[in-house]
Amino acid sequence: MASVRRMVVIGGNATGMAAASAARRLVGEDELEIVVLERGDFTSYSSCGIPYWIAGDVPDLDTLVVRGPDEHRSRGIDVRMRTEATALDTGGRRVRLRGPGAGEEWLGYDELVLATGARPVRPPLPGIDAEGVHGVQSLDDGRALLQALERAEADAAGRDGRRRAVVVGAGYIGVEMSEALVRRGYEVTVLDRSPQPMTTLDPDMGRLVHTAMDGLGIETVTGVTATAVRTGADGRAEAVVTEDAEYPADIVVLGLGVRPETTLAREAGLPLGESGGLLTDLSMRVRGHSDVWAGGDCVEVLDTVAGRTRPVALGTHANKHGQIIGANIGGDYATFPGVVGTAVSKVCDLEIARTGLLEEQAAGLGLRFVTVTVEATSRAGYYPGAEPMHVKMTAERRTGRLLGVQIVGREGAGKRVDVAAVALTAGLTVEQMTSLDLGYAPPFSPVWDPVLTAARKAAKAVRAAADRPHGG
Amino acid sequence: MASVRRMVVIGGNATGMAAASAARRLVGEDELEIVVLERGDFTSYSSCGIPYWIAGDVPDLDTLVVRGPDEHRSRGIDVRMRTEATALDTGGRRVRLRGPGAGEEWLGYDELVLATGARPVRPPLPGIDAEGVHGVQSLDDGRALLQALERAEADAAGRDGRRRAVVVGAGYIGVEMSEALVRRGYEVTVLDRSPQPMTTLDPDMGRLVHTAMDGLGIETVTGVTATAVRTGADGRAEAVVTEDAEYPADIVVLGLGVRPETTLAREAGLPLGESGGLLTDLSMRVRGHSDVWAGGDCVEVLDTVAGRTRPVALGTHANKHGQIIGANIGGDYATFPGVVGTAVSKVCDLEIARTGLLEEQAAGLGLRFVTVTVEATSRAGYYPGAEPMHVKMTAERRTGRLLGVQIVGREGAGKRVDVAAVALTAGLTVEQMTSLDLGYAPPFSPVWDPVLTAARKAAKAVRAAADRPHGG
Repeated sequence: MASVRRMVVIGGNATGMAAASAARRLVGEDELEIVVLERGDFTSYSSCGIPYWIAGDVPDLDTLVVRGPDEHRSRGIDVRMRTEATALDTGGRRVRLRGPGAGEEWLGYDELVLATGARPVRPPLPGIDAEGVHGVQSLDDGRALLQALERAEADAAGRDGRRRAVVVGAGYIGVEMSEALVRRGYEVTVLDRSPQPMTTLDPDMGRLVHTAMDGLGIETVTGVTATAVRTGADGRAEAVVTEDAEYPADIVVLGLGVRPETTLAREAGLPLGESGGLLTDLSMRVRGHSDVWAGGDCVEVLDTVAGRTRPVALGTHANKHGQIIGANIGGDYATFPGVVGTAVSKVCDLEIARTGLLEEQAAGLGLRFVTVTVEATSRAGYYPGAEPMHVKMTAERRTGRLLGVQIVGREGAGKRVDVAAVALTAGLTVEQMTSLDLGYAPPFSPVWDPVLTAARKAAKAVRAAADRPHGG
Repeated sequence: MASVRRMVVIGGNATGMAAASAARRLVGEDELEIVVLERGDFTSYSSCGIPYWIAGDVPDLDTLVVRGPDEHRSRGIDVRMRTEATALDTGGRRVRLRGPGAGEEWLGYDELVLATGARPVRPPLPGIDAEGVHGVQSLDDGRALLQALERAEADAAGRDGRRRAVVVGAGYIGVEMSEALVRRGYEVTVLDRSPQPMTTLDPDMGRLVHTAMDGLGIETVTGVTATAVRTGADGRAEAVVTEDAEYPADIVVLGLGVRPETTLAREAGLPLGESGGLLTDLSMRVRGHSDVWAGGDCVEVLDTVAGRTRPVALGTHANKHGQIIGANIGGDYATFPGVVGTAVSKVCDLEIARTGLLEEQAAGLGLRFVTVTVEATSRAGYYPGAEPMHVKMTAERRTGRLLGVQIVGREGAGKRVDVAAVALTAGLTVEQMTSLDLGYAPPFSPVWDPVLTAARKAAKAVRAAADRPHGG
């Protein structure tokens, strides 16, 4: 009888549980034991759903949990909750762990999966660890924030009723959280050190988001850096301090983005990229380690447009990685070719999307390019509900290859970015894109889809630039 | 001084006016005279918008006109309204025309553009030409229908108030017109000889449309053929007759599709394809005729998935063709690589989309394929407004190349077909599609976009089929 191999997974969210489940579907318990270590209280949940839970769109925490520990256990996966991995010994093929009970112990593995996710950026400012300052990365974070909000709201009701929140950072999470807090009745101030919110967009497109946030009554203060959180006599946060001003807050939410959580991996000497994410091969195997796999927010993936690796914290990739790792451990074959950098978000009815490179990124990579912006409508102009949308498109000079698209608009704008995402994957030129056979009917699109209109203008700009060998 | 060349365009709608305008932008009046012959009352309008005008979504006829004759004239285009071309003499490079005034005359050309569009299929049934039987191809048709509806509604008000309409044909136009008539308060019966409505979809997907039409109170009778229109003593249509039954109607709308309008071209001996559409080269020049161009609903275009030419009557292609013809006549360069067969439509809140090949088409082309259908949601399942959608995907055996996608769902479903349209253009396999970097956020998509879920299932089916060399 062959001995039973053991797969140990660190992290019980998207990547970890997808890997465990995919491997389990391929290999029975008589051949493979699967142990998942999860330090929190939840498995397989949607972090991306937290802002909507806070806003009240999602009724409760359970709704965000796709599959709980017991459900995974019933499928033959040994899920150990409140259990943290504290050290890796890749030479000895073992993980040191600390469970909810007594001390620490070592657990051997044949295959190790690192699915440790990301941690919110938390700058080392005075007061940053005070009560009332919240990140929103995990479901545990979300639960803590919701409890704090409910207490702040009770306090406010006993005073003048005003609820005040400061959000530090105006990226995706910051913007989504701002909206959620506005909808809970807060006066919200968002602070960001950049000239415009949403630095995942070029500044001219970020300005459109800024205007929309103004329209929601969100005070967006750009070009400022938080220097401290001022706390009251009870130790709770009372205001966020910048060089020039102080912004009173019953609640402070950190939306400064995330970094790969690779402390263990670093200590174990595993290969990390420039941004601190684990480096893997295309099968999601950690480089140079035949029995260690990694995926999700803790790895760097190949950005195929930039030709470089970088971390991309998104549930959709985390799930794909998990599937791929599980398939490979289970004896099947799968690879992850990389990303093109697609992201989509929403502030009230404003849809914000991007894929590929920003202008600054393209310039930093040594690319010469042309950029155009068009304003069009989401539907035929005469059809009810037609909404204006802006599409910005960047193409490489000479080759005319698509480099990136950014979209800001209303209903029906955001997911149009997918056309550009596929075009980037396929390496299409903007000239080729002008004849794409996209769906047309008045309730769905003008006769020229906004993406086609942008492609036509970009193709024209590429041709014009061909005549100027040294110009921009 | 060089002599002035003359460009003559037959047909003043999308292709014709786009060609005229594009050429005019490139070449001044001192070099090129542009004459457009339009037999109707309108130029540059949206035929596709007619159902929404009838339904009351679009306030009036003028809204559907993008640019009237005078506007074109002010840009240096000699637009001659109510002027019909009655013969072509390609050897003599001249067109015979009949204007609103006296007799006929010949007009010479240096470049001829055939943009004669399509005509609605009108089977030679008894009573088919009676008053009260309407097609909806041109704006003139739409105006006539609206007047007839208003009269029928006045008559109904003087009776029992019931308004009854029969729509013959349950394709895009038939289905859109059915909804429009329901919204005007009609009891609508749709007759189609196929087993399901929307034969642009496979029958299993058409069934979903059928169910939705039932839900709207539209009576859809399938598997029947109209044999006559019964008329009353006043000569007006009173009912549509089939072999088994008779369907009373105050108004009869024909939605049997359209055929290329190529009577003139046929008489002049120009090359036509199997479906009667003009055959052109990739620059939209009529094959074998260096000074004759054609585009829009009157031509056959290359379906790059099927590898054959066929007519595709859609405003978006008609506009592209016009641009290309105008660019080429104007001394620039442009080509039309073909279509992949994308179409999208709507019945109330049901969105219906397709691209590529149906199963029957694929089989008819000698292809072996696998087909899968998935049911998913348009947004994260927990996000408000998440709606079920069905995605059907077909992939070639062996190669795994995507062959087609059909989508039926609610808000946010239809335009997802564009991802498949780009993938078809790029020749992606369903395996490649599983790792597409599509936009993900809970308001926009589940963590696996429905198209990705379908691709995963299709890729699995391709792998499974590889093990069955002779099976299906």
